[in-house]
Amino acid sequence: MVTPVAHPDASLSPELLTKIDAYWRACNYLAVGMIYLRDNPLLREPLREQHLKQRLLGHWGASPGLSFMYVHLNRIINAYDQPAIFLAGPGHGAPGVLAPIYLEGTYSEVYPNKSEDEEGLRAFFKQFSFPGGIGSHCTPETPGSIHEGGELGYSISHAFGAAFDNPDLLVAVAVGDGEAETGPLATSWHSSKFLNPIRDGAVLPILHLNGYKINNPTLLSRIPNEELASLMRGYGWTPHFVEGDDPMAMHQCMAETLDRCIAEIRGFQQQARESGQASRCHWPMIVLRTPKGWTGPKAVDGKRVEGFWRAHQVPLSGMHDNPGHLEQLEAWMRSYRPEELFDEQGRLRPELKALAPRGEMRMSASPHANGGLLRRALRLPDFRDYAQPISRPGTERAMNTRPLGAMLRDVMARNADNFRVFGPDENTSNKLDAIYEVSKKLWLCDYREEDADGGELSPDGRVLEMLSEHTLEGWYEGYVLTGRHGFFATYEAFVHVIDSMYNQHAKWLSICEDIPWRARISSINLLITSTVWRQDHNGFTHQDPGFLDVVVNKNPEVTRIYLPPDVNTLLSTVNHCLRSRDDINVIVADKQNHLQYLDMDAAIKHCTKGIGIWEWASNDQGGEPDLVMVGCGDIPTKEALAATALLREHFADIRIRFINVVDLFRLQPAGEHPHGLNDADFDSLFTKDRPVIFNFHGYPWLIHRLAYRRTNHRNMHVRGYKEKGNINTPLELAINNEIDRFSLAIDAIDRVPRLQVAGAHVKERLRDMQIECRNYAFEHGVDKPDIDDWTWPY
Amino acid sequence: MVTPVAHPDASLSPELLTKIDAYWRACNYLAVGMIYLRDNPLLREPLREQHLKQRLLGHWGASPGLSFMYVHLNRIINAYDQPAIFLAGPGHGAPGVLAPIYLEGTYSEVYPNKSEDEEGLRAFFKQFSFPGGIGSHCTPETPGSIHEGGELGYSISHAFGAAFDNPDLLVAVAVGDGEAETGPLATSWHSSKFLNPIRDGAVLPILHLNGYKINNPTLLSRIPNEELASLMRGYGWTPHFVEGDDPMAMHQCMAETLDRCIAEIRGFQQQARESGQASRCHWPMIVLRTPKGWTGPKAVDGKRVEGFWRAHQVPLSGMHDNPGHLEQLEAWMRSYRPEELFDEQGRLRPELKALAPRGEMRMSASPHANGGLLRRALRLPDFRDYAQPISRPGTERAMNTRPLGAMLRDVMARNADNFRVFGPDENTSNKLDAIYEVSKKLWLCDYREEDADGGELSPDGRVLEMLSEHTLEGWYEGYVLTGRHGFFATYEAFVHVIDSMYNQHAKWLSICEDIPWRARISSINLLITSTVWRQDHNGFTHQDPGFLDVVVNKNPEVTRIYLPPDVNTLLSTVNHCLRSRDDINVIVADKQNHLQYLDMDAAIKHCTKGIGIWEWASNDQGGEPDLVMVGCGDIPTKEALAATALLREHFADIRIRFINVVDLFRLQPAGEHPHGLNDADFDSLFTKDRPVIFNFHGYPWLIHRLAYRRTNHRNMHVRGYKEKGNINTPLELAINNEIDRFSLAIDAIDRVPRLQVAGAHVKERLRDMQIECRNYAFEHGVDKPDIDDWTWPY
Repeated sequence: MVTPVAHPDASLSPELLTKIDAYWRACNYLAVGMIYLRDNPLLREPLREQHLKQRLLGHWGASPGLSFMYVHLNRIINAYDQPAIFLAGPGHGAPGVLAPIYLEGTYSEVYPNKSEDEEGLRAFFKQFSFPGGIGSHCTPETPGSIHEGGELGYSISHAFGAAFDNPDLLVAVAVGDGEAETGPLATSWHSSKFLNPIRDGAVLPILHLNGYKINNPTLLSRIPNEELASLMRGYGWTPHFVEGDDPMAMHQCMAETLDRCIAEIRGFQQQARESGQASRCHWPMIVLRTPKGWTGPKAVDGKRVEGFWRAHQVPLSGMHDNPGHLEQLEAWMRSYRPEELFDEQGRLRPELKALAPRGEMRMSASPHANGGLLRRALRLPDFRDYAQPISRPGTERAMNTRPLGAMLRDVMARNADNFRVFGPDENTSNKLDAIYEVSKKLWLCDYREEDADGGELSPDGRVLEMLSEHTLEGWYEGYVLTGRHGFFATYEAFVHVIDSMYNQHAKWLSICEDIPWRARISSINLLITSTVWRQDHNGFTHQDPGFLDVVVNKNPEVTRIYLPPDVNTLLSTVNHCLRSRDDINVIVADKQNHLQYLDMDAAIKHCTKGIGIWEWASNDQGGEPDLVMVGCGDIPTKEALAATALLREHFADIRIRFINVVDLFRLQPAGEHPHGLNDADFDSLFTKDRPVIFNFHGYPWLIHRLAYRRTNHRNMHVRGYKEKGNINTPLELAINNEIDRFSLAIDAIDRVPRLQVAGAHVKERLRDMQIECRNYAFEHGVDKPDIDDWTWPY
Repeated sequence: MVTPVAHPDASLSPELLTKIDAYWRACNYLAVGMIYLRDNPLLREPLREQHLKQRLLGHWGASPGLSFMYVHLNRIINAYDQPAIFLAGPGHGAPGVLAPIYLEGTYSEVYPNKSEDEEGLRAFFKQFSFPGGIGSHCTPETPGSIHEGGELGYSISHAFGAAFDNPDLLVAVAVGDGEAETGPLATSWHSSKFLNPIRDGAVLPILHLNGYKINNPTLLSRIPNEELASLMRGYGWTPHFVEGDDPMAMHQCMAETLDRCIAEIRGFQQQARESGQASRCHWPMIVLRTPKGWTGPKAVDGKRVEGFWRAHQVPLSGMHDNPGHLEQLEAWMRSYRPEELFDEQGRLRPELKALAPRGEMRMSASPHANGGLLRRALRLPDFRDYAQPISRPGTERAMNTRPLGAMLRDVMARNADNFRVFGPDENTSNKLDAIYEVSKKLWLCDYREEDADGGELSPDGRVLEMLSEHTLEGWYEGYVLTGRHGFFATYEAFVHVIDSMYNQHAKWLSICEDIPWRARISSINLLITSTVWRQDHNGFTHQDPGFLDVVVNKNPEVTRIYLPPDVNTLLSTVNHCLRSRDDINVIVADKQNHLQYLDMDAAIKHCTKGIGIWEWASNDQGGEPDLVMVGCGDIPTKEALAATALLREHFADIRIRFINVVDLFRLQPAGEHPHGLNDADFDSLFTKDRPVIFNFHGYPWLIHRLAYRRTNHRNMHVRGYKEKGNINTPLELAINNEIDRFSLAIDAIDRVPRLQVAGAHVKERLRDMQIECRNYAFEHGVDKPDIDDWTWPY
């Protein structure tokens, strides 16, 4: 391990150096205490077995490095009056973050029983990784955290989300060298290409070369420094190395390096802000190489620990059977000299406490890290102004997402500092391009002459497009977690790329529901478009509506799914979503030209109910129907209506009730989801015993999973996507999966008892029509030109 | 655009240069033909509207660049007698790959009706992106493809998987600059740190700076070359730039650069192979910067197309209404001078055809790209040799994965050139570390002195560990697609990271089912461990059994899920999976110490049935039970057994049937999944009307989704994980989610009519026991020491 050469104009006076080291020792002492102790927190008496937790949990390895960063960032905050927040990529090193949060007083303010005294310290130690206590990551219960660090890969993208539109903020982010091997993290370094030095804050990544994962060295710690520096420069950053294991030399080096980084950051910002010219900056980043488990036991039972993978979790265990380990633990804890750090009451000594920033300048008390405090409701236009006029249901067509683009444009215009739109590369393709009238796509890399020709690029664009769903979702989460708003439109099949990010954000929100001091944040609004039923030309790889199956497994308090079938229901849905808080709203709507059904008043009414009978498409008024036909999703609704028309054409006296579902969770029982219908309401819609043909946008089994407890479930026949796709025409794809009008009508005939005899020849005719349609597609490569000119005839 | 400076010792003679260019023109001609034509394939008559497809589909933008690479790789194959395969990351540029495949004859060999003549060419054109034809990516129907390129991000990891243990093979991989923005691709550049120059082949990435995605410039094309070179060097590669738009100069430059790359590759290989010392190499890679839609229309309707994003898909459209466009298309196609390229019959002229490699040296005919041809069945040890001896069911304990580690060790030892084990960082933690007795973890980066101390690293290890599930899965897929075998163990919660990769591989396999010339490949074997029920200490982020909900949506022909509850069932399951082909086997098994139930004979019998009554745990012999208790998964089975014991203890005359499910798809009807039970068999197990308490490993609704059609479904009461977790003890986590013994017994009492009165006080007692357990956990941080010492008492 190299000892860094002291910089000639050392930043830290000997006194400050001593204090910073003491503060850091206090952090390390606390980190060890959290992992091991349930009593005797200040070692006022010799350590005995009964002072220890029975189950030793936690990650020591990353903790000292995280505290090291934290205490040095504290100096920067005070020295430069620089507001900052801190994200710990290796969130499992939570003791290294919780310790300085406790020491600066925030923890006790938020959790008064974890007071700044011996009793509070005891409670603080005991609760860590303990039932009824807190988890071993930077969970939502951690003041100042917006990044749990449970699943690895998103620290940098979260950090950038926090920095956008926060020009004065510094977002420091510890990146673990384990995390750095993940794909999402590897591409998120490019985020700096999207940071506008005028209106955005700064992100300072500290790549922590701890050296080891659970059992292995890390890749980036085992390549030459010049290669790593080359990588960082190639990503667009200016790397600074801080390496060593001697604390005093390392404090000096870290302080000097941070001073240099702040100077560089402020230089870039000043230049851009004074000139008014935003350009891409080669922002500074730090490579911090320290031993894993730094200052911990060098060896245990003759096996190397400090600076090795064995330091990853609990370095000394089996204490209950091994008095030697107990002694070693006590020696280790006493090596931090707690008696010098804490006063009689068990409080951090005032001369050390003075090192921490005050009030909201403490990273743990920054309102940015409890973004709901800063959240201002969006100034929304009246969504009814974008309504699609409807003269008669099912007779006109429009592109469902285009008016939404206009609405988002006006949301953007009215909320120019706290609303962003995210998308991989597809806002134009998704017909949302009206947004560009008020804000282009952010672009800070090189420009070419041809960009003037419809490139829609600008250094101050507020639409963020990059071909990484991971990075976009990470930015978006970071943006809402710090109190702002957004909208993310993406390809249905490829939203699976961020399944696990959805899971983790839902878990975060779920825990937040029970944390009273966390203010509510904006929901994540995910528009899923380019959907399965219009991916007939892109083929099988682009057909996957299964994200919904992932969504439904998470806490019902935070999950919402909407499938608006036309323009006005989509506008009404998005208007609701943009106002909602603490949810993840998944909205499924295709971008192509579709039949329109509801005028705005009807749409609002329908969306408010979330599910309902379309009277104009039903003829069971005043009686029980022969059949309930259900559409859920734009294309499935159209095909279900077409099937209804076919049936009424062929069977004059058939009584059909037509239901459309916008809010998918209405199908679940009321006790299972806050949007669930009670059984009486459900039965009054779906009947208790009539056949139900349910045409669904996604995989058909999802409907059974939601509705299996309903009275009439046994009569529910569900159609949906069942992996029957290749290169098809739209109707052919529908036919292959049996969600087409013909298949549905045949299904109906099979299920309505009194049609079963009379219906035989109709079924034959329907099958012939199906074959005709297939043959036409096979011959011409397109559907019959008039097939989709079908409109509701009644 | 810079014109490259010709290298002094130009590689291509003027004659060869002319021929290569002509061959490339033929490719481009074919690519355009595929997108546009259904007739008049050789332009033997003036182009008319009726020659065109009605629906114009395909991606022109990437095609010329892909063909350019292909024809130059052909020269290399011949010049150096170098076997190679080609992966197109931008698989949507399929016309650029299909064209050279057709020209070298493979297409006609595989699909005789696409013969090498005018008629065959017509059929070849028409089928592209046409119903009944082939998709617009490098789909499984494409000879020579092992990478579809539908979902972006996996080209490099697939390429490395193909290169492992194929020392003579060159795997050329085109990486799109759009794809390069994704996370999975961004980290996969590090794969070169896992390529052993002695026993592995070479991977040659060609980063194609096409410049644009659908509507945006790409990041990597808009940073200075030196920054990009720095990035590539930082990733560990040696970059070579080929840039320009003048075809002749570009041919020279590409040829010289490829010569240089081959020299470097062979130099590294020779040095390592002669010295016997494998070390990390800074392998060459190429940055190829060409205009998007190169050689296509410069402009259409006055708007720039070539070298701009408008060239992405179909540059000229609306032909049917626009005679000008038709003329422009004809001029464009004629610019390739088809009359010079094809003979009277419509065959590529022999002097051009001679440029292509012959037989299996053609990249499209390489057996490596149809890996089933090369696949040798694994030499397997007898799995019964690793059996856990069982004296009596439910009385002994063992770590379920440990004997599997021993078995995998011996599989590894017997198959030293075609079996690999993959894992993020956890094989030791997953108790599979016996493997290291015969093969260490591959490590080619720097070594340190301490690595000798249990590091298990070696330059010729065959276990691959990197903290990127994406990269591991990509390597593994590439490895099996080229005819080899493997095993991948990973964390349950984080297998969601590769949901979309699972989806795409399942789709690939699903299509392969219908392609007669594709030989069957090894299954993907995914061991999901560190499961939800033992993540009570890691907390909520680490608890997610929802991957199974993703798995079940894919084609039943290729999907398998197993939940073996103990050592012997796990061994039997894995033995089956290692022999299987064309499936994705998902095996869920925890790594901790668990009760053992079945001796090896019983385990084999049970796994063969996949589901069955455990007679030793049942007392309904010779009659209908009062209750059916079901366990599926290790922990849920134990709790269900404990509940059964509690019930029998409290109710002497209760008759309980105990069922265990190993093969989850047994629950589906026989018509839905090949493993599905027929209704009679299902009813004989689950009865038609008795209450069923089903204790499931995953989210409970999945069971309803699988079994909703079963006779007795209405009486099936399912327990499973329902997102109720934080820091808990194991039993507390079970109690929170109601899969614990007490909750199950209470559920049973509520459902067995004759217990409902007598059972009231028992329920109370059970609730008290639950509270006692909770309180103990809350107090001590661990479960009661004896709580899990429970064993089956009957």
